Amino acid sequence: MIWKEIEIPTSARVQLKDVTALVVNELQKSKVNNGICYVYVPHTTAGVTINENADPDVVTDLINNLERLVPVKGNYRHAEGNSDAHLKASIVCFSQAIPVIDGRLALGTWQGIYFCEFDGPRRRKLLIGF
Amino acid sequence: MIWKEIEIPTSARVQLKDVTALVVNELQKSKVNNGICYVYVPHTTAGVTINENADPDVVTDLINNLERLVPVKGNYRHAEGNSDAHLKASIVCFSQAIPVIDGRLALGTWQGIYFCEFDGPRRRKLLIGF
Amino acid sequence: MIWKEIEIPTSARVQLKDVTALVVNELQKSKVNNGICYVYVPHTTAGVTINENADPDVVTDLINNLERLVPVKGNYRHAEGNSDAHLKASIVCFSQAIPVIDGRLALGTWQGIYFCEFDGPRRRKLLIGF
Repeated sequence: MIWKEIEIPTSARVQLKDVTALVVNELQKSKVNNGICYVYVPHTTAGVTINENADPDVVTDLINNLERLVPVKGNYRHAEGNSDAHLKASIVCFSQAIPVIDGRLALGTWQGIYFCEFDGPRRRKLLIGF
Repeated sequence: MIWKEIEIPTSARVQLKDVTALVVNELQKSKVNNGICYVYVPHTTAGVTINENADPDVVTDLINNLERLVPVKGNYRHAEGNSDAHLKASIVCFSQAIPVIDGRLALGTWQGIYFCEFDGPRRRKLLIGF
Repeated sequence: MIWKEIEIPTSARVQLKDVTALVVNELQKSKVNNGICYVYVPHTTAGVTINENADPDVVTDLINNLERLVPVKGNYRHAEGNSDAHLKASIVCFSQAIPVIDGRLALGTWQGIYFCEFDGPRRRKLLIGF
């Protein structure tokens, strides 16, 4: 099994960044034909999810809806002011596993892979494994 | 690694459908003895989770509780009226990984695998891999 | 692939218990060098997540924030009084997959693995697989 680390610079406090093309690129280099593609986020205030890649309003709604559920300002103890980001990351999760069939990511028609920044902007890392 | 696609017809806008027997059936055909069973949902308004297979009130509470957290009607931009479904899917996740030990799914006593429809009824797909 | 079951005693109704050292211990015994480490919770009112291992206030905020979103007392049907725990477990998920690189868990600097008890105290199980 091979793991590749790539850098993901983010540009806002909260950002869902489409990384599908980066993952597809690593898959093509790996020459894996059938299996699983893993993406893993080694952070505690960022995560990764899958969602719609067509209408950007979906991503905006996801961000606003998560902010409504877990506001940045709240009755938190942690002094760094990013307690919301820690919970948001645990909600969307830190990894996704996507089938690889006949050398291609078996994403659904409307699925893209989104790196979820919840406490940026920062330089982040994403691990991709096959 | 082998992936199998099965059809999951759903019958309501929101439905948690127990697919455990379908997954067990594929496991038995696969003859895998030790490893992992993956289930993957290639959609953006449906997901998959694990939860109690005994009292159906648990599933009803899960559905009602998710609806309370992310209501179908809200201040959303996306024009298709299913922004809630996109977030609900990201919350429960698009895949689950279940241990296979001695040819059996190592689900806990009370665990079942639920396909989570959040914008049905539709004909959906589920990928099962070993 | 090898699965190991370990016991996790919990000591409160809701508790995020750091199990990183237990997982690392199993990894060392397994002699796996490159691959994936899976942790799987075979329960329906407990789960597993990854989050910060430094400031304990982060864990306190995670617990309080989840309780605010999904209160123990609510308009639930399920008679056992733990409907909140079932949803909390589905939110954080029942498994995590962590890269193994050069014989080490490739957790981020601040990441720890937390067994999430939502209906304790109980004797729980955790499956660890490589």
